[in-house]
Amino acid sequence: MGKSVDIRLSGEMSFEVNLDGHRFEIDAVEQFGGADRGPRPKNLMLASIAGCTGMDVVSILRKMKVAFDDFSVKVTGTITEIHPKHFDTMHIVYKLKGKNIQKEKVEKAVTLSQDKYCGVTFSFKPTINITHEIIIED
Amino acid sequence: MGKSVDIRLSGEMSFEVNLDGHRFEIDAVEQFGGADRGPRPKNLMLASIAGCTGMDVVSILRKMKVAFDDFSVKVTGTITEIHPKHFDTMHIVYKLKGKNIQKEKVEKAVTLSQDKYCGVTFSFKPTINITHEIIIED
Repeated sequence: MGKSVDIRLSGEMSFEVNLDGHRFEIDAVEQFGGADRGPRPKNLMLASIAGCTGMDVVSILRKMKVAFDDFSVKVTGTITEIHPKHFDTMHIVYKLKGKNIQKEKVEKAVTLSQDKYCGVTFSFKPTINITHEIIIED
Repeated sequence: MGKSVDIRLSGEMSFEVNLDGHRFEIDAVEQFGGADRGPRPKNLMLASIAGCTGMDVVSILRKMKVAFDDFSVKVTGTITEIHPKHFDTMHIVYKLKGKNIQKEKVEKAVTLSQDKYCGVTFSFKPTINITHEIIIED
């Protein structure tokens, strides 16, 4: 299956991104000649893995008939100081709110995503130490 | 250096992303229960590598005093059919417009990005066959 992105220089360091028919800007911070008109391109890796595994887990929980009121994912990563500056760790926090959510079912959904379904996790695993935790609130 | 993203379920499959202080949505296509309110999370990998290497090349060309009128990057990738569905190839096209652009200098800038500076390329290399080409137009 083929996918593509087009980006075009739109400012000093900013690019307009056209992805899946949606447009947004990416940019560097002022320290690196940018104007912060959008997120940093490397940090899109965080949004990519968060969204990929988040959609997996939502989808699997629905199939398991696990109801919830709110679902969010936070991914925190660390970047090396030496070139090529790359993420070497990512920690994923899955947070669910709702009554009577069985943690074992959420754990199963997360494990299925991390080990079997999430193609972004698969791509990142060789160079990034990926860990996770699950938080359930009433 | 620590970085983070927060995403929160905002529709059937869509998430609102908060990254570097910028907000946008990601979503699945209708076939997978989404409404196409934003790009696919996995495809953010394409925008990530395009922006990372694009900013490198712009920055290096300016240091080399190579002037250009327009600069764009297109990345085309293929995704496997089996789980975990992941990118196995990415082809990067760097396109510059301008008078008297020396291709050797652009090649040097691209090589420096791909081999030394781009942390996204570094992260993707173990699982993705990454190729590139350079197009220069008057």
